[in-house]
Amino acid sequence: MQRIALASRPIGAPKDSDFRLETVDTPNPQAGEVLVELHYMSLDPYMRGRMDDAKSYAAPVALGDTMEGTGVGRVIASNSEKFAVGDFAFGQFGWATHGCKPDTQLRKVDPDMAPLTTSLGVLGMPGFTGWYGFHELGRPKAGETLVVGAATGPVGSMVGQLAKAQGLRAIGIAGGNDKCALAVDTFGFDHCLNHRDYEDGRALKAALQELCPDGVDIYFENIAGKTLDAVLPLMNQFGRIPICGMISWYNEGALGEHAGGTSDRLPKMWRSILVKQMSVNGFIISNHWDRFGKFLTSVAPLVQAGKISFQEDIVEGLENAPRAFMGLLEGKNFGKLIVKLN
Amino acid sequence: MQRIALASRPIGAPKDSDFRLETVDTPNPQAGEVLVELHYMSLDPYMRGRMDDAKSYAAPVALGDTMEGTGVGRVIASNSEKFAVGDFAFGQFGWATHGCKPDTQLRKVDPDMAPLTTSLGVLGMPGFTGWYGFHELGRPKAGETLVVGAATGPVGSMVGQLAKAQGLRAIGIAGGNDKCALAVDTFGFDHCLNHRDYEDGRALKAALQELCPDGVDIYFENIAGKTLDAVLPLMNQFGRIPICGMISWYNEGALGEHAGGTSDRLPKMWRSILVKQMSVNGFIISNHWDRFGKFLTSVAPLVQAGKISFQEDIVEGLENAPRAFMGLLEGKNFGKLIVKLN
Repeated sequence: MQRIALASRPIGAPKDSDFRLETVDTPNPQAGEVLVELHYMSLDPYMRGRMDDAKSYAAPVALGDTMEGTGVGRVIASNSEKFAVGDFAFGQFGWATHGCKPDTQLRKVDPDMAPLTTSLGVLGMPGFTGWYGFHELGRPKAGETLVVGAATGPVGSMVGQLAKAQGLRAIGIAGGNDKCALAVDTFGFDHCLNHRDYEDGRALKAALQELCPDGVDIYFENIAGKTLDAVLPLMNQFGRIPICGMISWYNEGALGEHAGGTSDRLPKMWRSILVKQMSVNGFIISNHWDRFGKFLTSVAPLVQAGKISFQEDIVEGLENAPRAFMGLLEGKNFGKLIVKLN
Repeated sequence: MQRIALASRPIGAPKDSDFRLETVDTPNPQAGEVLVELHYMSLDPYMRGRMDDAKSYAAPVALGDTMEGTGVGRVIASNSEKFAVGDFAFGQFGWATHGCKPDTQLRKVDPDMAPLTTSLGVLGMPGFTGWYGFHELGRPKAGETLVVGAATGPVGSMVGQLAKAQGLRAIGIAGGNDKCALAVDTFGFDHCLNHRDYEDGRALKAALQELCPDGVDIYFENIAGKTLDAVLPLMNQFGRIPICGMISWYNEGALGEHAGGTSDRLPKMWRSILVKQMSVNGFIISNHWDRFGKFLTSVAPLVQAGKISFQEDIVEGLENAPRAFMGLLEGKNFGKLIVKLN
């Protein structure tokens, strides 16, 4: 089997030499374990955080260890009563062609319900992130205005479609005219702005303000940076900001200390939260798996019926995962980024 | 009657010449109106914001107009069926010895239930602010640790006493050893730190960390500045920060642009909210008067029974209000600051 190990900790944007492709022995499943030949693995922005040695909500990947990640594939050997050879399983196998895990850490996936890849995107962690943050922390009301960045990614596109289904105005921000067209044509956003057209947050704000004459009620935060700068001044009284990520800062140093502007904007932001009576809530979806069943029950039928769309960007071969991941951090992917393995 | 007008908009800390004491005609109550001879008026930190011309949640006081504020006094003439001469009324009379208001804007106060002054402090807006933010946004659980600044002020002392009554650890921050003693001896805080003993947020953090070995679950924000710097790194997963004020920045310019550090701390704070999955909620108590009745029903008996203590700092004479207010912004008051008028 092959795997990709963390060769060195990146400073700023990761580069080829931070990763190492290795061939290792395929393990044999011990009692209760299952060996899976992976068909697909997921690449997600959060993985950048795992490459740093900083204290965070999850332990960093150790140097020399397999890069962390989830995947889905076919059981090819089983020492478990719960999984038979031929079953499909989802789990945290890391960046690898095969993985061996205790059955307690795996979830069975039904390939007839939806394509396997959806368990990594629209019906997996990213879709769940959008659904949870929007409903639980966004507290949406019909007629309100929502803004979300990375609008064609698996989180943003879920948020936008849920917002439209619930009668909100949905404004997307994305990097590229092709993405903006996708956001409007496929995901139903009312408008989508290409942030690359705007030099800084101030310019982006001016454009966004025209699209949000009644201000912004919900800013679903997954990107930060210029988008945050643009949206904050437009937030309405009693606005809500669920925060699940801040992609644009992930390459800026573990603590974001290089991501700052030239002045200390903390006091102004703090005052905004007060005078606008905002509710700002950070969340990490892995602490909310108890709601995953409800999410699947509610969203899977909508995906099957074509009422929720999804866009996938599939790269072939484990050896191409590092480059694809570097591109993800620069917004080069077009939809949910997935690596096809077997 | 006498009143104090806003003579000029302060830059930084207010000074004597920003205020002007004037003698004007006492108005006659028109239909539905009530004339009140004020016994006490309140001085509160939020008034500093009203002196600035910046866009905020409330309109600024116009130059030449009476400084905004609430007071309580005796009805001396009435053209209303709801108030008789001799009744006591609470309302927004501004900084003045007398005030004339429509009865719809007044609340009757029972001087036998509690001293009149309490309607400005422990049983008024400040006490209500502490009660609302603690219960509604703090979501307290027994055994947790709470930190609040201005611990002997009417908001902080309410928060601390409610926290202790509900089985939390309560750590106060105050400016002065006399205040710290009051916080512990009278209000029952477990500990209180004198922020003047610490040069900066880092030093205060080190001391606070020793008092909070299990971290901080609720930071009730009314002071910001050094205290915010000290508490933020100590916040626990799922920590809550209700924000009702940021006194230490009020003299630093309307938008806090002079209150900053030497680097942009916004990205780091934003990341903290995410990785610690915090809930940060700004609130302005005047939007929650629908809960005031519940507050009074619940807290007034505790005050009457001596189970909730309060400290008042009473200054005599309207002419001394500006100096007292300037002192308030520097933390020179000792408890709820009130001006005795008649």
